[in-house]
Amino acid sequence: MTDILGQHFIAGGRSAAGDVTLQSLDAHTGEALPYRFFQATDAEADAAAQAAADAYPVFRNLSPLRRAEFLEAIADQIDALGDDFIAIVCRETALPAARIQGERGRTSGQMRLFAKVLRRGDFHGARIDLALPDRQPLPRPDLRQTRIGVGPVAVFGASNFPLAFSTAGGDTAAALAAGCPVVFKAHSGHMATADGVARAIIRAAEATGMPAGVFNMIYGGGVGARLVKHPAICAVGFTGSLAGGRALCDMAAARPRPIPVFAEMSSINPMIVLPQALTERGEKIAVELGASVVLGAGQFCTNPGMVLGIASPEFSAFLDKLGQFIDAQPAQTLLNAGGLHSYCRGLTALGSAEGITHLAGREQTGNQAHPQLFQADVSLLRKGNELLQEEVFGPTTVVVQVRDKAELEQVLASLDGQLTATLIAEPADLEQFASLVPLLEQKAGRLLLNGYPTGVEVCDAMVHGGPYPATSDARGTSVGTLAIDRFLRPVCYQNYPDALLPDALKNANPLGISRLVNGVASTEAL
Amino acid sequence: MTDILGQHFIAGGRSAAGDVTLQSLDAHTGEALPYRFFQATDAEADAAAQAAADAYPVFRNLSPLRRAEFLEAIADQIDALGDDFIAIVCRETALPAARIQGERGRTSGQMRLFAKVLRRGDFHGARIDLALPDRQPLPRPDLRQTRIGVGPVAVFGASNFPLAFSTAGGDTAAALAAGCPVVFKAHSGHMATADGVARAIIRAAEATGMPAGVFNMIYGGGVGARLVKHPAICAVGFTGSLAGGRALCDMAAARPRPIPVFAEMSSINPMIVLPQALTERGEKIAVELGASVVLGAGQFCTNPGMVLGIASPEFSAFLDKLGQFIDAQPAQTLLNAGGLHSYCRGLTALGSAEGITHLAGREQTGNQAHPQLFQADVSLLRKGNELLQEEVFGPTTVVVQVRDKAELEQVLASLDGQLTATLIAEPADLEQFASLVPLLEQKAGRLLLNGYPTGVEVCDAMVHGGPYPATSDARGTSVGTLAIDRFLRPVCYQNYPDALLPDALKNANPLGISRLVNGVASTEAL
Repeated sequence: MTDILGQHFIAGGRSAAGDVTLQSLDAHTGEALPYRFFQATDAEADAAAQAAADAYPVFRNLSPLRRAEFLEAIADQIDALGDDFIAIVCRETALPAARIQGERGRTSGQMRLFAKVLRRGDFHGARIDLALPDRQPLPRPDLRQTRIGVGPVAVFGASNFPLAFSTAGGDTAAALAAGCPVVFKAHSGHMATADGVARAIIRAAEATGMPAGVFNMIYGGGVGARLVKHPAICAVGFTGSLAGGRALCDMAAARPRPIPVFAEMSSINPMIVLPQALTERGEKIAVELGASVVLGAGQFCTNPGMVLGIASPEFSAFLDKLGQFIDAQPAQTLLNAGGLHSYCRGLTALGSAEGITHLAGREQTGNQAHPQLFQADVSLLRKGNELLQEEVFGPTTVVVQVRDKAELEQVLASLDGQLTATLIAEPADLEQFASLVPLLEQKAGRLLLNGYPTGVEVCDAMVHGGPYPATSDARGTSVGTLAIDRFLRPVCYQNYPDALLPDALKNANPLGISRLVNGVASTEAL
Repeated sequence: MTDILGQHFIAGGRSAAGDVTLQSLDAHTGEALPYRFFQATDAEADAAAQAAADAYPVFRNLSPLRRAEFLEAIADQIDALGDDFIAIVCRETALPAARIQGERGRTSGQMRLFAKVLRRGDFHGARIDLALPDRQPLPRPDLRQTRIGVGPVAVFGASNFPLAFSTAGGDTAAALAAGCPVVFKAHSGHMATADGVARAIIRAAEATGMPAGVFNMIYGGGVGARLVKHPAICAVGFTGSLAGGRALCDMAAARPRPIPVFAEMSSINPMIVLPQALTERGEKIAVELGASVVLGAGQFCTNPGMVLGIASPEFSAFLDKLGQFIDAQPAQTLLNAGGLHSYCRGLTALGSAEGITHLAGREQTGNQAHPQLFQADVSLLRKGNELLQEEVFGPTTVVVQVRDKAELEQVLASLDGQLTATLIAEPADLEQFASLVPLLEQKAGRLLLNGYPTGVEVCDAMVHGGPYPATSDARGTSVGTLAIDRFLRPVCYQNYPDALLPDALKNANPLGISRLVNGVASTEAL
C-alpha cells in the first residue's frame, strides 16, 4: 500500500507539518516496515481538537438516523478492507490473519450495533412531566428531558485489539453514536493499521455527508497529553496500562475545567475453582483454563491472571495438570518489543518475590513470550502485595491456594477492582459457596459461571468495566451498547414549545420511541 | 429542645470523643444559640466511614421494596418535625417559617418520589441477552445486566436549603435509594437543624429494620476532607461553592483509588430578554425578574445572576424599571455571617471593576444584604472576565447589553457552564432567535422559556446540573429522579443460574419491571 502517507487526519484533510517521523515495525522481526508517520506538532494536535469542536454543533444535531447511516457506512468500509490490509495488521501486531479477520467482523458489527441503538432510541433517555397548571400551592411547568453528546472526545486505542479497541473501536463507535466528534490518537504499535481504518472512516464520512472534523487522527508520542488538556476536548476514552490511564486521569482532573476519563486499565480477572467442579472435571478445567491463559499470547484485558482454589488432593492434581499444560505450550510473539520487555520484567518480579514459587513454564529467553505458571502464598494477597494486584500482560497466571471458604472470602475481599470474576462450579458448589457472589459483585463488572473471561460479547447486557483499577469509573463500560452513556449528558427543557423541542420530546413522538411520561413508560403521542 | 446532644451519629449510636466544640449561631443576631456540637476526631470520621462500609453489603442487597419503605418512613418522620423544630431552623438560617415549612414538604416529597422510583424499577437498568447456543462461529452465552449501589457515599449539604439540599436532601435520598449508606457532613450553618433531621432518619432506620450505619453524620470543620480521602467512601455528593467543590474534586482525584464527586457549585444562570417580549411586556418582566433576583435573599443556586438584552429604547426602559424595583427592595438577612462577608466582597469587586457600572441598590452597610443591580460592558464578557463568570451569592444581578443577535451569540458562546439558561420571548422572538437554543443546550443543564429559574421542580424530567463549573460532572443531576444514576454501577452476569441472579434479572421477572430482552423492551417473564 503505497498510499500510506503518514499524515494526520484533520478536519477532513491531511497534514504533516512536523519534522520528526516514526517508523512502523514488523512485530515478528522488529524490522522497519516501509511506512513512516509524522509526529504531530502542538499546532496539529490543537487543530485536530478544534476541528472536532467545529464539527460538534452540526454533528450532534443530526438526526439519530443520519448518525446510524454514518456508522453503517463505516461498517461497510471496514468490511471492505481486504487481504492487503489484513497483511499489514498481521505484520504490525504479530496476530494471525484469522484472528484479524474475526476482529474486522467484530469491529464492523459493533458499528452496526450502535446504529441499531440509535434507531431504537432508548439512548435518548426521554422523560416528560406534563404541566399541571392547577396544582396547589404552585403549578407545575411542562418539563422534558433528553440527552445530548457531551462534546468532542479524545480516544486512545489499545495495542491488543488493533481493530476492535482501536481507531474504529468501541470507544470511537460509542462517541460517534452519542453525537460526539472524535480525535483519535493513533497507537504507536499499529500506525499503518490505523491509517487504513482512518481512511475507511473518512470515506464513510464523506459518503454520508458528515461534517469535516467528525473524525480526526494524529500520530506521535506524547501528543495525547496535549489533546487531553485541550479546552475543546470534553471527555476521554482510553484502553491500556494502569500507569498510562492514571496519568491521563490526573491530567484531566487538573484541567481548569476537569473532564471525565473512561480508562480501562488493569485487571487480574480472578478465577475461583470450586471443590466439586474439581472432583468432577479437574483435568478438563485445567486444560480449558490453561488455554484461556495462553489465548492470543495472553494479551487480553480479561486474561485470567489469578486462579484461586481450596487446598485438597483434587486441587493439587488440577495444578499438576495445569502445569503440564503450560509447560507444553509454545512461545508466542507479543504485539511489540515493549510488551515483551514488560512481560519479562513482570516475570522477574514474580520469580524473585518471597512467597512466590515458579510452578511451570520454560525459561524466558529469546524474542517470544513463554507461558508461565506461578503460585503465591495466600499471606501475600492478604497483606495486599502489589505484585499480585497488577496484571502481568502476557501468557502467565498466578495460583493462590486457600485453606477454606472463610479464607477464600477474606482473600476476595482484599482484591482490587476487576473487569471479571469467574466461578468454576457444580450445582453443589453453588449451594455451598453462594455467599461468594455478593463479594464478587462488589469487585467486578462481569461475573461468569463456568466460562472463561477472555470472550467479551458485544451486546446490550455486556459490562466491560469495574471498580478501580480495572477502570477509572466503574459506572461505565467500554464494550456493549451501554458504552454510549459515558458520552451523553441530560438536558431539561422547561415550558418549551413543540417546534423548539428535540424530536425525542415532541408531542407527536415522531421517533416512535419509549418515553417516561408522568412516570409511566409510553410510546404514545401526547 | 434540650435533647440536642451535639454528638455524632455513628453506626446507629452516638459519639463525642473530641475536645473541641462548635457553636450554633442565630443567623439574625449572630448570638450563640444554646447548642454546642463536638468536632469529630479523625477516629470518629473514620468510624463513620467504616460504619457505612459495614452497612453496605446488607443495605445494598435489601429488596427495592424494603428500601422504599425506609425512604417513606424518613418522609413520615420529617413531616412530623414540628413547630419547635421549624423555629430552630429559622433561627439558624434566618429563613422565614413559611419557607421552611414548604421545604419540609419538599424534602419528604423527595424521599417519597425516590420510593416510587424503587417500586417502578427502571433504575435497575435491566438488560438480558439470552444465550444463542447454536450461533456460528461461536455460541453466545446468557448475559444479564443490572445496576448496584457503588458503595458508601459522603454527602455535603448546602447552606441555602437546610432541609431539601442538606441532611435528608436530594443527595442523601438518591444515595439511599441506590442502596448506598451515607456519611453526612453536617453543615456548620445549621447544626441543630441537622441534628433534628438526623434523628428523624435514625428513627426511620430503626423502625424499618435497616442496618446500623446506613446513615451516619459527623460535625466539624475540615472533617470532610478526611471522609473524602477515606478508602471506604466510594462517591461524594456536594452542594456549595466553586472553591469548596473543586477542592473536594481534587482530593478525590488524587486518592490512590480515585472516586467520583458530584459537586453542584457555581452558576450565573443567564436570562436573555428578547426584543418582542420587551415591547409587549417589558415592565412586567422587569418586576418578575427583579422578584426572582431577590427571592430568598438571592440565595438560590439558580438565582439569575446575569441579564442579557439587545440595545433598544425598550431594553433601556426595562433596565430603568428593573433598577427602580431593586432600589425599592428591603435589605434581607443572609444565611450566615460568612455569606454576608462573601456578598460584600463580591459587590466590592463588581463595583470597583473597570467596565462595570452600579445601576441601582442602596449602599451596602449593616448586617443585612441590600439588593443591587450592575451593568457590565459586553467587552468584559467577550474577554472572559472572571468576575462575570462566578456567581455573587445574594440578591444581585449584572446586566449586559449587546449590539445585535450576532454579538448575543458570541457572548453566549463565551459563557462557562450553567445550571440554567432562560429565554424571555414572544413567538416572534423565537422565530428570529431559534439559533440561540443549540448554543444554550451546550451551556446549561436546564433551558427555560418565559419562566424564572429559581423554582426547581422535583420530578423525573428535571436536570439540576450542567457543564463545569455549574457542576463537576455534567452527566449528573442533583434534583429529580435521575439523580439516583450517579450512585449506581452496572454488573453483568454471564451464564448464571436463576437462583443466583438478582430479582431484577430472574426469568420469572418477579419485580414485574420493564427489561431490555434481546434488544426489545419487555415486562414479560422469560
